[in-house]
Amino acid sequence: MFNKVLIANRGEIALRVLRACKELGIQTVAVHSTADSEAMHVKLADESVCIGPPASRDSYLNIHQIVAACEITGADAIHPGYGFLSENAKFAEILEAHNIAFIGPKAEHIRTMGDKIEAKRTAARLGIPVVPGSEGGVTDPNQAKRIAGDIGYPVIIKAAAGGGGRGMKVARDESELKAAFQTARSEAGAAFGDDAVYIEKYLGKPRHIEVQVVGDGKGNAVHLGERDCSLQRRHQKVWEEANSPALNSDARARIGEICSKAVAEMGYSGAGTVEFLYEDGEFYFIEMNTRLQVEHPVTEAITGIDLVHEQISVASGGNLSVKQSEIEFHGHAIECRINAENARTFVPSPGVIKHFHTPGGLGIRVDSGVYSGYRIPPYYDSLIGKLIVHGRNRVECLMRLRRALDEFVVDGIDTTLPLFRDLVSNKDIADGKYDIHWLESYLADG
Amino acid sequence: MFNKVLIANRGEIALRVLRACKELGIQTVAVHSTADSEAMHVKLADESVCIGPPASRDSYLNIHQIVAACEITGADAIHPGYGFLSENAKFAEILEAHNIAFIGPKAEHIRTMGDKIEAKRTAARLGIPVVPGSEGGVTDPNQAKRIAGDIGYPVIIKAAAGGGGRGMKVARDESELKAAFQTARSEAGAAFGDDAVYIEKYLGKPRHIEVQVVGDGKGNAVHLGERDCSLQRRHQKVWEEANSPALNSDARARIGEICSKAVAEMGYSGAGTVEFLYEDGEFYFIEMNTRLQVEHPVTEAITGIDLVHEQISVASGGNLSVKQSEIEFHGHAIECRINAENARTFVPSPGVIKHFHTPGGLGIRVDSGVYSGYRIPPYYDSLIGKLIVHGRNRVECLMRLRRALDEFVVDGIDTTLPLFRDLVSNKDIADGKYDIHWLESYLADG
Repeated sequence: MFNKVLIANRGEIALRVLRACKELGIQTVAVHSTADSEAMHVKLADESVCIGPPASRDSYLNIHQIVAACEITGADAIHPGYGFLSENAKFAEILEAHNIAFIGPKAEHIRTMGDKIEAKRTAARLGIPVVPGSEGGVTDPNQAKRIAGDIGYPVIIKAAAGGGGRGMKVARDESELKAAFQTARSEAGAAFGDDAVYIEKYLGKPRHIEVQVVGDGKGNAVHLGERDCSLQRRHQKVWEEANSPALNSDARARIGEICSKAVAEMGYSGAGTVEFLYEDGEFYFIEMNTRLQVEHPVTEAITGIDLVHEQISVASGGNLSVKQSEIEFHGHAIECRINAENARTFVPSPGVIKHFHTPGGLGIRVDSGVYSGYRIPPYYDSLIGKLIVHGRNRVECLMRLRRALDEFVVDGIDTTLPLFRDLVSNKDIADGKYDIHWLESYLADG
Repeated sequence: MFNKVLIANRGEIALRVLRACKELGIQTVAVHSTADSEAMHVKLADESVCIGPPASRDSYLNIHQIVAACEITGADAIHPGYGFLSENAKFAEILEAHNIAFIGPKAEHIRTMGDKIEAKRTAARLGIPVVPGSEGGVTDPNQAKRIAGDIGYPVIIKAAAGGGGRGMKVARDESELKAAFQTARSEAGAAFGDDAVYIEKYLGKPRHIEVQVVGDGKGNAVHLGERDCSLQRRHQKVWEEANSPALNSDARARIGEICSKAVAEMGYSGAGTVEFLYEDGEFYFIEMNTRLQVEHPVTEAITGIDLVHEQISVASGGNLSVKQSEIEFHGHAIECRINAENARTFVPSPGVIKHFHTPGGLGIRVDSGVYSGYRIPPYYDSLIGKLIVHGRNRVECLMRLRRALDEFVVDGIDTTLPLFRDLVSNKDIADGKYDIHWLESYLADG
């Protein structure tokens, strides 16, 4: 087991990891930019090191400074959280060269899954269902037309190196293809420095369903069920739940087994998420995230399993704490991502939180790094807290969530709480009837 | 279902009940003394009524004022919480006369269980194992000597109307009996205005184990397993856990079935707790509490069942949400009662809480009515919060509890947090090897 872990992140996830380390008796080192010296993760860590000015590239993305902080403090491992350096294969390799353990998968798996085309090829090889599409990157408009014709319209064109919706275009028929193809390529080139794109069957009203897996790097892996993250705005998840209202236990077990078998075969180490679009009873692989995800607590709520404990255990050469047969799913959990943004315009709202009161009671968990009097710096993402609610079933979970949202007080800044207060009483949400476009339409209608 | 519930209590339990009401869509009325106008339960309730000056007898025990508050606000039910009027049969009857529902058992059951002798007689009749002892109150020293001789020494003499350790004396042999008997009688007379005492077999190193039951008042009842509350100081529970480290699932099922069968037969309505001493594999009934208890959240943690929801449901003529066969116990939970007291001297420490930071994360629940800047009034009991921790097993629960206690910050006043930080690392506690005297000895040795 590690003696001291450096947490190369900030905000609620730094705190989340810190708690897991403390539970395992591991010393913790926080790193922070000059903008974050009053942050909660800095206050609660055993030691802290300032690693640079506010801009992420100079601090939380500054590999040199982070490695130096490890060496100064004698940390023997780094947990990267999510975002920042968490899916940077080069970072994992540099740590290895410095004999510092990376609490995450092997560099080769990060690299494979970081390349969308390679990821899809690997997924298909491992028996994971993929969406029909081009085998690799496409650069020729005529080749694009041929492929789209074979797949059948509508098709979607995506940047190979992309993410977050940049470089993505839909063509509903052949007349739209050429313009969509060219726009996607130029956006991809501008955003990622790589204009390779690929073409796939476009699903009209799919859900986003993702499977949580954990591997021990020695050929063993389990799945912890799925999360439904269909409620998205501009490809950013807003509300996540487990289990998915759309799956029955057979479908859950089937896709879960496919994923756990695949990551076991890869020799994958640590936590990962295999993301799918799901439509008409079929799963279509989107990508695999080789890190802990923002929405991991809903899985923890229904399984009782601490995913960061599992990550740390396998990264230090240990075993998973559970076998597949021991994993049970109890009840239903929903997470709302509370952002410091106007709930109608989504304009960020940094500033001082005058009063911060979080709901409590049975089945309520709030993961947050902020507090009354905290000044939200304008440099980072706007997530100020995650409200995770667990109930014996979805109806109870929604009742409890409604109460918790009413109780949540954040004074002094705008937040997205009002959006969630609307959503929790919406009939489609209550019925679990939504797809990945639902929230955008809802907001457009509002 | 009720439209509006008045919560005749203060502090964390008022907040606890308020949350349950809000989840069920019920309007809430807080009542408060003049000392509690800034209390959290007042801030979060839909309406609030000041019912009198600080002294409890003039406010939280003032039946006239509470009934008037109900009539002013149009509340159709009262939840009494614990303490104060929660076990006052007269109060329940007065509410009935005013056509206000009492969220608790029938007055006759409160009255029966409030009289220790009557309670024991009833328990024995219903098949609950009782400790061997006098059939009723004893007033004659010679009769006392005969009974003690029949039971066998050591024996304990207890006030019939008592509780909280007042009027309790142990006689280890016949030479000690006379003095113990007389002291117990005069203490009982002074404390309760009733000098009736009874005599029982004294158990040397028992555990305190209590069974949570809920009945629907229509002859149906379930048990929700047991809690081990052996860690006590001056007969006040300090640390409670579920399940008990001393019981196996057979013993749990056996005593649980006895209790649920008994309360079903009584036609008992609402939540109740059947308390036992447990020694050498045998249970001995102590008393039944006809209310929600401070330590109810450990049961909620391992069952997922909201006990206040059940109370409200059955009080409004509804059903229990579960059948016995549907109740499962998952993992292990521990509650620590954080008091505003010095952790060595236990001297109360009222005053202003400068900074209040509660731990969070997976498996952590903090029920508390205080906040940063809150002034603890000197008039009421010193409980400022309950830390409830849930884990997949007792070892994980203790790891998580240790971390949560480290993270808990209460600045400005003394609290009992340091005591719990010691206990959580103690070997006897880790081994689950403690009886009802363990904590007193530990504190005496410290």
